[in-house]
Amino acid sequence: MTLPRLALTMGDVNGIGPEIIAKLFANYEPSAWCSPIIFGCASALDTVRHLVSEFPNFVAVDSVDAALSLRDGIPVYNGGHAAPAVQFGIEDPEAGRSAILWIEAATRASIDGKLRGLVTCPISKACIYKAGYHYIGHTELVAELTGTSEYRMCLFTDSMRIVHITGHLSLADAVAAVKKERIMDSIRIGYDALLALDIPSPQIAVAGLNPHAGEGGAFGREEIEEITPAIEACRGAGIPCEGPVPPDSIFRKMREGRYQMVIAMYHDQGHIPLKLIAMDEGVNVTLGIPIIRTSVDHGTAFDIAGTGVAREQSLVAAIRLAARLGSIR
Amino acid sequence: MTLPRLALTMGDVNGIGPEIIAKLFANYEPSAWCSPIIFGCASALDTVRHLVSEFPNFVAVDSVDAALSLRDGIPVYNGGHAAPAVQFGIEDPEAGRSAILWIEAATRASIDGKLRGLVTCPISKACIYKAGYHYIGHTELVAELTGTSEYRMCLFTDSMRIVHITGHLSLADAVAAVKKERIMDSIRIGYDALLALDIPSPQIAVAGLNPHAGEGGAFGREEIEEITPAIEACRGAGIPCEGPVPPDSIFRKMREGRYQMVIAMYHDQGHIPLKLIAMDEGVNVTLGIPIIRTSVDHGTAFDIAGTGVAREQSLVAAIRLAARLGSIR
Repeated sequence: MTLPRLALTMGDVNGIGPEIIAKLFANYEPSAWCSPIIFGCASALDTVRHLVSEFPNFVAVDSVDAALSLRDGIPVYNGGHAAPAVQFGIEDPEAGRSAILWIEAATRASIDGKLRGLVTCPISKACIYKAGYHYIGHTELVAELTGTSEYRMCLFTDSMRIVHITGHLSLADAVAAVKKERIMDSIRIGYDALLALDIPSPQIAVAGLNPHAGEGGAFGREEIEEITPAIEACRGAGIPCEGPVPPDSIFRKMREGRYQMVIAMYHDQGHIPLKLIAMDEGVNVTLGIPIIRTSVDHGTAFDIAGTGVAREQSLVAAIRLAARLGSIR
Repeated sequence: MTLPRLALTMGDVNGIGPEIIAKLFANYEPSAWCSPIIFGCASALDTVRHLVSEFPNFVAVDSVDAALSLRDGIPVYNGGHAAPAVQFGIEDPEAGRSAILWIEAATRASIDGKLRGLVTCPISKACIYKAGYHYIGHTELVAELTGTSEYRMCLFTDSMRIVHITGHLSLADAVAAVKKERIMDSIRIGYDALLALDIPSPQIAVAGLNPHAGEGGAFGREEIEEITPAIEACRGAGIPCEGPVPPDSIFRKMREGRYQMVIAMYHDQGHIPLKLIAMDEGVNVTLGIPIIRTSVDHGTAFDIAGTGVAREQSLVAAIRLAARLGSIR
């Protein structure tokens, strides 16, 4: 089996990105899961050398092709853009610009077919705004670069997989977007991911929108008019899904193993339970785009950057999930 | 200190109500926390005698006054309404009617000042509908009987206290109800409960409505136009509250002890995290009404009624909380 080639973008060099990347390669063997290329700055990695025992052999290269043919060491490619000097914890627009350019380079290499996709370390929204960009986050940037409008923002752990039918919308707009077609697309996109992950006998649960899933129409009719028809259409197409399940019991049932995936009707319906439960193992996944993209489920953590206490577990989970999605498909 | 007099309503006799009441008195000493009167049926309690070791001494009485003057045993008052014969697990409209009449009798005795309030065991919505009533649940019934429109549906555990600004509304209607006055009333009602519970240095967190609390107005303006002004007005009035806090991190922060209460903007914003975390210790509380009312946080459990496996922990938590709310005020 050929391991999938994956970009690992460093994110904001003044955050914990360089440290968690160094710890990832020092403490785990990601090369056993995938063929990784770091999109970032080798000198930024050098600044965390003292924080990591058995510092990995990072090697700066000047192209994706050079990275792919590197025999010894872990390739680090800066995409033609040198990063500014590291200043841990500082909001530097130039660091924001570098982070965006690395994501763009990694996404383009994936679109070109040289890589299967990318695993992203955190960026600072404040910095990318100051640098003149107006993306809400990676998800929107990667969706735009790949020309995708029907992407889905997802959160995965080992026991919880949540596909959100909408992302960064006001709750009022999200309620208005609860429509049969969008729900059906979400179920299909989620089911494809379960197949890619080779999960045996997957069962998908579709959440209701309203309290108690609307209580038979007593408070809200979206379950009757949009959600149930979407579930029935998908079941008719052979996708194992059920619902609408009351939102305040669906996540416990998934944790108990009854469902392998939940389709959530809005951002916080899925984010609230997952972020309450998952400490380090949460992975942010963008589904519906033509490349693989996973991300750590935490921010730049400017407050602890450079101190050595950052934990690499979410990055480990993100790269393992990307490798699994990339290997089996 | 005089212990508060509390009604304990039996709920649907064909559910687990009689069993958890018998276990409560067999395994705990609620008379040390309050002066309890069971509103229900002594013969229904007899049907679970074989399920409970050291069966308590329940004594049928024919009035609240007789209950209050009972010297030995635990008074059981049927409010003048004999229950139908117990048929565990069966949806019987007459059992639904009895449950409602007991709640009404207990609420009236509380309004009259003979009792401080009531602790409720579960009722079956299907049965009360079949009996011709159209309440969504206890909360709405007790609010109507006490003539209260500004009540709040709350969920409490030892470490999590959640006040919802609205209850059983469609999500679209709940979004439209996110208004400064309603939020201010909720903060005030919640703060009163924290004072009644004598919680030292309480801090209240007010949740945002939108993802990331609206991200500075990028997706949703309710935080700017309604929530922040409500928080500022309450702070100005001396109530320790802060926010709006992003909904997907607020509950973890409360569990970590940073906040003693969260004001949630809609039913599921609070119900999803609490029901994911709380197994047996969740208590449903109605605040803003002139009497005390707490409830177990589970249903009739018709599927296990009469089998002896029901757990009384949520009832223990509900009666302890009611006693605490009733003792200190």
